[in-house]
Amino acid sequence: MRGSRYRSDVSLPPIRRYNGFMNVNGRHYRTIWPVEGRSGVVSIIDQRELPHRFVTLDLRTVEDYAQAIADMAVRGAGLIGATAAYGMWAASVMAPGDTKGFRAFVETAGDKLMRTRPTAVNLAWAVGRQLDAMSGENWNPRAAREAAQRGASDIAEADAKMCRTIGAHGLGIIQKIRLQKDKDGRRNEPVHILTHCNAGWLAFVDYGSALSPIYAAYDAGLNVHVWVDETRPRLQGAALTAWELGSHGVPHDVVADNAGGHLMRHALVDLVITGADRVTSGGDAANKIGTYLKALAAADNGVPFYIALPSSTFDWNMDDGTAEIPIEERNAEEVRYVRGLSRSTGRPDEVLICPEKSGARNWAFDVTPRRLITGLITERGVCAATREGIAELFPECVQVFNDMV
Amino acid sequence: MRGSRYRSDVSLPPIRRYNGFMNVNGRHYRTIWPVEGRSGVVSIIDQRELPHRFVTLDLRTVEDYAQAIADMAVRGAGLIGATAAYGMWAASVMAPGDTKGFRAFVETAGDKLMRTRPTAVNLAWAVGRQLDAMSGENWNPRAAREAAQRGASDIAEADAKMCRTIGAHGLGIIQKIRLQKDKDGRRNEPVHILTHCNAGWLAFVDYGSALSPIYAAYDAGLNVHVWVDETRPRLQGAALTAWELGSHGVPHDVVADNAGGHLMRHALVDLVITGADRVTSGGDAANKIGTYLKALAAADNGVPFYIALPSSTFDWNMDDGTAEIPIEERNAEEVRYVRGLSRSTGRPDEVLICPEKSGARNWAFDVTPRRLITGLITERGVCAATREGIAELFPECVQVFNDMV
Repeated sequence: MRGSRYRSDVSLPPIRRYNGFMNVNGRHYRTIWPVEGRSGVVSIIDQRELPHRFVTLDLRTVEDYAQAIADMAVRGAGLIGATAAYGMWAASVMAPGDTKGFRAFVETAGDKLMRTRPTAVNLAWAVGRQLDAMSGENWNPRAAREAAQRGASDIAEADAKMCRTIGAHGLGIIQKIRLQKDKDGRRNEPVHILTHCNAGWLAFVDYGSALSPIYAAYDAGLNVHVWVDETRPRLQGAALTAWELGSHGVPHDVVADNAGGHLMRHALVDLVITGADRVTSGGDAANKIGTYLKALAAADNGVPFYIALPSSTFDWNMDDGTAEIPIEERNAEEVRYVRGLSRSTGRPDEVLICPEKSGARNWAFDVTPRRLITGLITERGVCAATREGIAELFPECVQVFNDMV
Repeated sequence: MRGSRYRSDVSLPPIRRYNGFMNVNGRHYRTIWPVEGRSGVVSIIDQRELPHRFVTLDLRTVEDYAQAIADMAVRGAGLIGATAAYGMWAASVMAPGDTKGFRAFVETAGDKLMRTRPTAVNLAWAVGRQLDAMSGENWNPRAAREAAQRGASDIAEADAKMCRTIGAHGLGIIQKIRLQKDKDGRRNEPVHILTHCNAGWLAFVDYGSALSPIYAAYDAGLNVHVWVDETRPRLQGAALTAWELGSHGVPHDVVADNAGGHLMRHALVDLVITGADRVTSGGDAANKIGTYLKALAAADNGVPFYIALPSSTFDWNMDDGTAEIPIEERNAEEVRYVRGLSRSTGRPDEVLICPEKSGARNWAFDVTPRRLITGLITERGVCAATREGIAELFPECVQVFNDMV
């Protein structure tokens, strides 16, 4: 039922229909939800089909869940965590009825799920929480199954709630910029916000991280405009962020990933907000490849650069992001081919953009060092991207890390 | 007949054939050449069809020339200049036979050609040179026509020669890096060179600017490897640079434009070389959108960042590139759609990558400030990207500018 939380009077506008593909028809969705009456089964929005087709998928087996994450039918820090949590519930449903067999099965399932996307810290976090919950029931299958169901539901609800709160905290930053532009006699100019990849409600269970403050600002009546980095190779910006923003009515323009530096040099960006896939306890942030380049341009032009994240995205065990965060390398075909809706057939298709014999490489993330980050927008408020800043908001978590070192 | 200048024993390897499209079949081409026996007519390689089809086009009228430049059938600093020069020859062939009518016609043609791509300084330079040559004949139609033919041929030959010399000067930079890597015990690692857009022989009449040193290094037997930025929106890297390098046998991998920062942070780039569309007398360089972001990443990671250009790309009348160089904004459909070879039909097609109703913006260039540029590789040698550095190599040109100020 997303969207209604922001504007109770407005339903998600219907996605424009073309070539006979289905649309959302005003019905609101979260990104993942349990199927009533079917233990261990959830439905998801298959994000590989957006923005041109709206398709939902049911996940039932641990393999279904692992594949949905690995193939990016679901993606984004929070949603990967929630999917893994539900996947552990599914594992508990599929597991043998004896304690030893049960434990071995769910632990193997946890390993399998964790291997799908090495950079996403929420994945390990969610699997770990579910294993702890089941261990807390001494691996008694029936009790552990209930704990896993409760755990998945809690993780999903907590994710939605954290994202909503991130929106409220981030709104303050946008309001200040709006006020300053008004004072400078630029009342008719929107606050221009650049974002990279998709850290909207599609990347979480609801609301999103980077886009949550933007939705909050738009719903508060602020004049905002979003520069949407298309985000090659998988085009999460062009396909998902533009779809989300358009569905909600937020003014936006898609730009090539190359454009951000030019925009910033010409004062056409007031603020950059991106999400993150993993942030160290020292404030370094792994996010979609290309984020680091935008952070450099922001620093070079005095544009504030924020990372929005729920606390589940922190990796309290790491400090130096560049040295420590593993960076996933994906299939080169994602670079060589571009997916979209064919102009000539009106159907989804892929086009080869380079010579057939040319190779490609495809790292999915880069790390933005803390020195380039103006601040972190979390569910507990905004803090500096430093060990000290983070410790002020999350003293109990950083303490755990300090004890370990 | 390109290619043979670098390796007399090796013909351009045939482009791999697929889906029945033509290939170059080992025949060597320049990017533009006069059609024998037809006054004012040239053939060009239609670069919009590469890398999947090799198609040549004849240009006859001034409108043909203007359209070929505007639609980017030809593109790249040097080739745009040469095409405009031949276009002025075509204008002189089409112009009326009386002196006054002749002059009015060719001046109008010059205006028309200059309006096609506002950022490319070679365009204005070539048109200006041709007008000067015709003016030198007192606009006598017959003499001016001969002067324009000679002028076009001279500009094309000079372009090829300058590019070849740029290769020789740039080779020295690559050799030094190769020696250092050998000393560091990294003999088996290639020298990794990152390039953005296409500044190869396809962007000039022959050889290229940024790629000319790479061809020279490869032909000298140096172990090199090129990271090819795909260069959205028009994909000149994936489509043209990868095709050129592959045809010549140079090892390369295509990467998303987002990848360069990550590569540099992980010491996977030894050197960046790009071309330029306009360089001011102070050393600021306008080049394909996204170049500035790579320059920032190079500076942040201590990677040498060079701009290779023939002197025709200098704009002696400008100093501050960001303030003064006009930046062309192109059709947003170039961002919303991606061209390539359809996986399902095997034919060229375009795919829509964002929601049908989402808008886009499409600036074609950005400006890299001189402080981020390690040096300029020109046909007279390598110099610092500063007024002083440029003045050492081109004293007569900078003097002209100084006199004007």
